[in-house]
Amino acid sequence: MSDRREFRDLAEPSEAHAAIASLELEPATESVPLEEADGRVLAERIDADLDVPGFDRASMDGYAVRARDTFGADEADPVELERIGAVHAGAKPDVTVEAGTCAEISTGAVMPPGADAVVMVERTDEVEPGDEGELASDDDSRIAIRTSVAPGDNVMVAGADVAAGQRALGPGTGLTSREIGLLSALGRETVPVRGRPRVGIVSTGDELVRPGDELDSDRGQIYDVNSTTIAAAVREAGGEPVLYPHAGDDYEEMERLLVRAADECDLVCSSGSTSASAVDVIYRVIEERGELLLHGVAVKPGKPMLIGRIDRSPDADRAGESAYVGLPGYPVSALTIFRTFVAPAIREAAGRPEPRTATIGGEMAVRERYGEGRLRLMPVGVLERPGTDDPPLVYPVDKGSGATTSLVEADGVVAVDPDTEYLDAGERVEVQLFSPEVRPPTLLGVGEDDPALNRLLDRLDRPRYLPVGSREGLRRLRGGLPDLAVTAGPVDRDVESIDLGGWTREWGLVVPTGNPADVSGLADLVDRDLRFLNRDRNSGLRASLDAALDGMAAERGVERRELADSIDGFEWTVRAFESPPRRVKAGDADAGIGLRSTAEKLDLGFVSLGDQNVRVRANPDRTESEGVAEVREALAGIGAILEDLPGFESA
Amino acid sequence: MSDRREFRDLAEPSEAHAAIASLELEPATESVPLEEADGRVLAERIDADLDVPGFDRASMDGYAVRARDTFGADEADPVELERIGAVHAGAKPDVTVEAGTCAEISTGAVMPPGADAVVMVERTDEVEPGDEGELASDDDSRIAIRTSVAPGDNVMVAGADVAAGQRALGPGTGLTSREIGLLSALGRETVPVRGRPRVGIVSTGDELVRPGDELDSDRGQIYDVNSTTIAAAVREAGGEPVLYPHAGDDYEEMERLLVRAADECDLVCSSGSTSASAVDVIYRVIEERGELLLHGVAVKPGKPMLIGRIDRSPDADRAGESAYVGLPGYPVSALTIFRTFVAPAIREAAGRPEPRTATIGGEMAVRERYGEGRLRLMPVGVLERPGTDDPPLVYPVDKGSGATTSLVEADGVVAVDPDTEYLDAGERVEVQLFSPEVRPPTLLGVGEDDPALNRLLDRLDRPRYLPVGSREGLRRLRGGLPDLAVTAGPVDRDVESIDLGGWTREWGLVVPTGNPADVSGLADLVDRDLRFLNRDRNSGLRASLDAALDGMAAERGVERRELADSIDGFEWTVRAFESPPRRVKAGDADAGIGLRSTAEKLDLGFVSLGDQNVRVRANPDRTESEGVAEVREALAGIGAILEDLPGFESA
Repeated sequence: MSDRREFRDLAEPSEAHAAIASLELEPATESVPLEEADGRVLAERIDADLDVPGFDRASMDGYAVRARDTFGADEADPVELERIGAVHAGAKPDVTVEAGTCAEISTGAVMPPGADAVVMVERTDEVEPGDEGELASDDDSRIAIRTSVAPGDNVMVAGADVAAGQRALGPGTGLTSREIGLLSALGRETVPVRGRPRVGIVSTGDELVRPGDELDSDRGQIYDVNSTTIAAAVREAGGEPVLYPHAGDDYEEMERLLVRAADECDLVCSSGSTSASAVDVIYRVIEERGELLLHGVAVKPGKPMLIGRIDRSPDADRAGESAYVGLPGYPVSALTIFRTFVAPAIREAAGRPEPRTATIGGEMAVRERYGEGRLRLMPVGVLERPGTDDPPLVYPVDKGSGATTSLVEADGVVAVDPDTEYLDAGERVEVQLFSPEVRPPTLLGVGEDDPALNRLLDRLDRPRYLPVGSREGLRRLRGGLPDLAVTAGPVDRDVESIDLGGWTREWGLVVPTGNPADVSGLADLVDRDLRFLNRDRNSGLRASLDAALDGMAAERGVERRELADSIDGFEWTVRAFESPPRRVKAGDADAGIGLRSTAEKLDLGFVSLGDQNVRVRANPDRTESEGVAEVREALAGIGAILEDLPGFESA
Repeated sequence: MSDRREFRDLAEPSEAHAAIASLELEPATESVPLEEADGRVLAERIDADLDVPGFDRASMDGYAVRARDTFGADEADPVELERIGAVHAGAKPDVTVEAGTCAEISTGAVMPPGADAVVMVERTDEVEPGDEGELASDDDSRIAIRTSVAPGDNVMVAGADVAAGQRALGPGTGLTSREIGLLSALGRETVPVRGRPRVGIVSTGDELVRPGDELDSDRGQIYDVNSTTIAAAVREAGGEPVLYPHAGDDYEEMERLLVRAADECDLVCSSGSTSASAVDVIYRVIEERGELLLHGVAVKPGKPMLIGRIDRSPDADRAGESAYVGLPGYPVSALTIFRTFVAPAIREAAGRPEPRTATIGGEMAVRERYGEGRLRLMPVGVLERPGTDDPPLVYPVDKGSGATTSLVEADGVVAVDPDTEYLDAGERVEVQLFSPEVRPPTLLGVGEDDPALNRLLDRLDRPRYLPVGSREGLRRLRGGLPDLAVTAGPVDRDVESIDLGGWTREWGLVVPTGNPADVSGLADLVDRDLRFLNRDRNSGLRASLDAALDGMAAERGVERRELADSIDGFEWTVRAFESPPRRVKAGDADAGIGLRSTAEKLDLGFVSLGDQNVRVRANPDRTESEGVAEVREALAGIGAILEDLPGFESA
């Protein structure tokens, strides 16, 4: 392996921030139509170039008058004025108000010449023609004014709202509905806004396939996670992502792609492959086609981060160079490094402040030791406690950074200083959420995986459920963090909990369609040469299987271990309740442990070994939580949830 | 006027919420490409339909081995295995690991048949051919393994991340970058998301003109503010706005337009005109072409709100009816009612929770009386106090709801209960921001309007400056709310303040280009028959003019009043520092009070009457605030700000 990848001198995180800040990401100002300006940032100050309103405007329905004609008028002693016409909104006045006259006027209409005030209609009366024995046409009636008004009363003079030349909005203003409203009043058709930095995303690695394309697992292909994740994160930070087709680990192809991305973008991010050779190739391209500013940062994760510049090609539309950042390959690491180092630079270039929701305060739920001598960006889960004054609980999530599920099992990261030795339970921490839109859950459940439970979870507001199995679920419930644990089958651990309800499910052996090997029960697995597929020890299905083997061992007068050893595949365990049946369907095994419902769903055969109890057990400290209350409510409707699930009964 | 508009029985706000909740707004589920799914809401649960990874995957660079071959190996006593080939990421293994052999493997590669663990490269050595006197080709070397591994070590088994059949994401999940990442891992090309409710916006009123079109002020035309404001607010709530062309006040046209909008949308909002006849026409259309559920709500503003349904036409693409809400005509009222009653219904239909940033806590800065017996949605400004533990200050804004500037001078509303008599200064209140993206200012300035000040404000982060004039500015500063006041000219009020700096500006009479009336000074206004245009008493320009008249009055031995009375237009005042010169330019006056810089900008003539001092005065209680610190910094660079402003000097 190349020396270059050794990163012996790791840069400080502050140096990485400085290196990125030194890059020029800022795009040109754009002019956008007003109706597309919402959410953008004003590039320059907007001064009014007209008066609003542009004319002296009646602000009441009533009569336009010369104020001095009304002086002295009151309820007891009205003044009568001759009505000489009417002015409506949107029309040019065709009358002039002279002494002793008035004109009917609608709200929003132009004040007719001569008039300097409006008397609201409620303080006037039409004088009945009979009153004075006169005959008056509609356009030639007399109006009794029962109040006096001062010049300017009920009139909004031209420019009173905004006057031409006034500063209306400053540069850097984030445009929301209300600023759009003011710009409309000023008649703006287009608005100068900060450009969105274009961020090219190049993902590398021969094994990566775009979502939607066919996957060849035999060749070790996996779907490309980083490109779409980073693209979405770029958009959230106010940038415009551009995805480039996959680059393999070939120098020529990588060079061509990176330079093309540099030609077209303000910033190029590469990410994706964990393979050494791809990183090596990128390193060489940056050194030869640009400048490497920094390689390796003293932060966990993210040590292999690269920061540099790529020269644009001579025939590119724009000259100069593009910024470049190389992100780690694991999804959580890539998103963490992006959020910490790259997103702030994109926001800065786009003129957008960090949203107030980007961080959230919380309290460590457990003690967490540390002491690696470099900054740690620790992925954490957050559990909100609505309806209480308690801050959210924060707990470390460490599934290994390669797991994409960490992306949704963690909500953000806590930055732990190099010299922090531990975070104590109860300590206040600040969580940098993966996205300002992340809403941490209000319920944390752990335990068995189960199809009825999946449906029940669908009815809750924002649950997080970790299918760690019944045994591990109980262990965690005892640890005090989760709100509830779901167990299936016999339980070998006594954990204090409140039973919220549950159901039973029929379990057994799932066999190929038509049961070609004629499996009739457990004894066939023990006594015949059949390939079996099991679940691990945390699973409630496994607990019931072990109990059944205990029974058979007692009958036969042998140890359970002996029976287990004679089952081919007893230790061949897979992850989830559908996994053994799916492998059976794929022809990998003659029988797998599973549920009747799964067998029917997958059109497989099923040999029942019994029913097992599934119980939802609440943490005794959380029985009053909003999340647990929602679970209780959902359990009350369990009948409907189980309705078309074969082998399920409420219990 | 029609009885219908009297709204004698106002509905309670809760009835209005219930009426809107009874309407069916929910659009059909959509399927969108993964790259457009960010920010949308999942319409249904997503289960994994494949294992991630889809194969047993090396999670380290190193050697794939049979674990039992390594048992007992350590640094002191390595085990040697025959290297039989290599497996790279993205390639199908072409070797089988048998007892005594190993295969080089890269992170992410498929485990070759026979191997069940990986030894990381750091714990291995290639055995030098010379060591044992053997000659080995590259593909036939021997590897010393310096550690023992257990089955499964450094291998991520198929489905370990997500197993097929597992619940991946629940319905109602808001999709952010991290969920996009998980969906990518599952290979999803499209995602089922909640539809966005289509909201048709119909604005009414003959006087309204779309921004960008020509405005005829003589006819009383104004730009349509509500359509674009509400369209942006619809988008912010997760809906999709559709703007319909203006409807006049004609029944036929209004009916055609409302029914067309109903045919195409889930909800129709009308707003815009304050004219009685338009409201009347809408009322009739809803009654005749649908159903009116509610008219008039006991809330200030918003009494004239309408809620109902409009039947779709028989030839519409979809059957049934559209919801209908009629909003008040004034922009702040329309936005307030939309935010309070309509936005929650749109969010509900779109499956989006109210953003955490939609409300903000604060503390009343002043005592505010109330007691009108109906719910008041009081427009308020918010002043943040960053760097302190103090909550934001909240103060009522009441410019009259017709003013579009209230849209940006207020940040949101405080709901004041009908039975609240007053809110005390210091009382905690919750502000419903006009938009979740509203960022309240961190500096509140008041006082004189000035072109240099406008430039200075451009250099601050989030200032709010109310150009109320020098005199009113000082009055408000004494009231204690603003951070600073800016005054120009002589000041007649002694207000405790800290002088932060300032400049001088040359003021005088702005006259038409070439000074056709040959104006040479104030005496011409007094002694000749010239039409003049003034500023109001709050303006510092007016204060300097009054002082100059005082001087002339003393010289002539008369009262200032006498001189003022002989100036035609002395009481004809307009709003902003550019207003008198602009009217002069339009030919409305022979001279106007103004600045040399304005005269030069507008290519007008200028007769100097002197220089006046502009001072920036800080509230003594706020000299440590972040906003004031920014102002100090900006004032330090005042030289550059004044550089090309004629008649301005630093002082």
